[in-house]
Amino acid sequence: MTTVREVGEFGLIARLLGALPETARSGGGLLVAADDDAAVQAVGPGESIVVSSDTLVEGVHFRLDWTDWASLGHKCLAVNLSDLAAMGASPLLATISLGLRGDELVSDLEAMYAEMGALAARFVVRVAGGDIVRSPDALTITVTVIGETRGGRWLARGGARPGDAILVSGTLGASAAGLAMLRLPADDLRRSATTAQHLIDAHLRPEPRLALGEALLREGATAAMDLSDGLLGDLPKILAMSGVAGRLQRDAIPVAAAVRALFRDVADEMGLSGGEDYELVATVPVERVDRVIESAGAVGATLTVVGEIVARSDPGTPLMVVDADGSERPAAGDAFDHFG
Amino acid sequence: MTTVREVGEFGLIARLLGALPETARSGGGLLVAADDDAAVQAVGPGESIVVSSDTLVEGVHFRLDWTDWASLGHKCLAVNLSDLAAMGASPLLATISLGLRGDELVSDLEAMYAEMGALAARFVVRVAGGDIVRSPDALTITVTVIGETRGGRWLARGGARPGDAILVSGTLGASAAGLAMLRLPADDLRRSATTAQHLIDAHLRPEPRLALGEALLREGATAAMDLSDGLLGDLPKILAMSGVAGRLQRDAIPVAAAVRALFRDVADEMGLSGGEDYELVATVPVERVDRVIESAGAVGATLTVVGEIVARSDPGTPLMVVDADGSERPAAGDAFDHFG
Repeated sequence: MTTVREVGEFGLIARLLGALPETARSGGGLLVAADDDAAVQAVGPGESIVVSSDTLVEGVHFRLDWTDWASLGHKCLAVNLSDLAAMGASPLLATISLGLRGDELVSDLEAMYAEMGALAARFVVRVAGGDIVRSPDALTITVTVIGETRGGRWLARGGARPGDAILVSGTLGASAAGLAMLRLPADDLRRSATTAQHLIDAHLRPEPRLALGEALLREGATAAMDLSDGLLGDLPKILAMSGVAGRLQRDAIPVAAAVRALFRDVADEMGLSGGEDYELVATVPVERVDRVIESAGAVGATLTVVGEIVARSDPGTPLMVVDADGSERPAAGDAFDHFG
Repeated sequence: MTTVREVGEFGLIARLLGALPETARSGGGLLVAADDDAAVQAVGPGESIVVSSDTLVEGVHFRLDWTDWASLGHKCLAVNLSDLAAMGASPLLATISLGLRGDELVSDLEAMYAEMGALAARFVVRVAGGDIVRSPDALTITVTVIGETRGGRWLARGGARPGDAILVSGTLGASAAGLAMLRLPADDLRRSATTAQHLIDAHLRPEPRLALGEALLREGATAAMDLSDGLLGDLPKILAMSGVAGRLQRDAIPVAAAVRALFRDVADEMGLSGGEDYELVATVPVERVDRVIESAGAVGATLTVVGEIVARSDPGTPLMVVDADGSERPAAGDAFDHFG
């Protein structure tokens, strides 16, 4: 008898999707299935809806002594909008389901909703209900977002081609560094650094890259996803879905300056493997890279070329990291497993 | 400092929706807002998507010693499809988010998914992903369903008009009786009644009335909702949204025969107040009642006239129950409150 812990999160997902009948998994206007950032469903000529859902659990995804309620509200919606950004979709609706113990303060929950609402208003997302239930022990928050794409186009994970450049947005590692900062003893001097709050904010209040996702789609990126499990955890998912391999230049990774300043010894590691930055990684045909970077700049986003897509040679490791001296090593692409 | 328990589920919903900015609650193609069975969003000319979400928590909504995993999977999806049925919508997609402890057996979860998939396949719903996270103590299952309506029409709660007949589908009270059956001591003779399993099935495996919802919409019902909190708990929500009052004929309530046989003393009460039947209650202009009943019959559903909508006279109780002798009493319309 196999338990969930034994197969792990990703093994379980594969097993459970396999337990569904074919008609519940594909066809009928379902254009992108459950294993991408979001599913895509055709609803009319040239019009598709895009759906994604994420659950945050107290003690697993957040700690109430580390986050304020407003930031928690921001993050719950932001991580879902980030999935739509990774598809190049525009958000329309969100549903919010809360599992509550009952001793929460209404004012705290109102602060959470107000901030979720502020983010929703900024991206013109409507809150379309949900459910509120009693949850005996831990606060749980499930947000489902629904967006749309027009013209029958979206950015899935399976489109990367050999020769494409690999680009990431913004800087990496700040969220992992912010989490490390929250874990430091209260008397650690780094907590009083002027950049400490910047890193903590990066962890508690990630910004969904919606305008960037739309620009990537418009300018011809071939694949994209958002970085929740770190570049070494997430990029292999694009490689697997596209049937290709990748090569990352370690020196090119745009590690956040504050991470280098405060976590010098592990800064490279945080940039490569740190989770929850919610930046986008995209693959772009080489001839379009300049144009894509320019369009990203027009919506206030930066993009950095960090590597290239190459043909997959079996047997071989799909993702290699190239060091400054030109030596290559296989990336240990360990995505975060909730049951690992 | 007010806690969730103090304001209760419905007070909390009102407070939290009030905490959202106006732009996050209305406009932009949102045609029906968060306080109906499901939200309705325009996506193209004459085309709308309909969204609803429900969470089931172990120990609150189900007990694993009372339900098998397959039935649990059926019910999680069925109660969400029931919300779409209440709007007259056709389902398209479902997302499933699981919060798991980690010691669950994969084979149990596969059985749950297989049954959810069987129901999805029967109604041509595609499972469009979701999320799987660790939940420290209780199993939680959040399902979000997305459907569509065409021609700019749907069945909301706010359309009932004085003079309309009130109809309910199927029979009532079987789910409450099934739950009572599960709670009986193991040696209670009623557990061995041939109808006992029928009642327990009504509780564990409700049937979403999707074809009936579409028929009600097509034939001109003015309002509808699904019965999750019992007729006396749910009908007042239609009355409040429509600004009308209602009068129910106690003798007309179609209490399930097995309920009358096994729970004689409380059968009327179970029919009026028992939750989780997931039948539909609808209001229909009198001149269309025969036509609506005939169309329901064509899709295998029965409808019974149980009362009428009347004008609201303030101050007055919006819902009255008329007994066999013609005497009236105000209905104690107590919806189930998770924090009550």
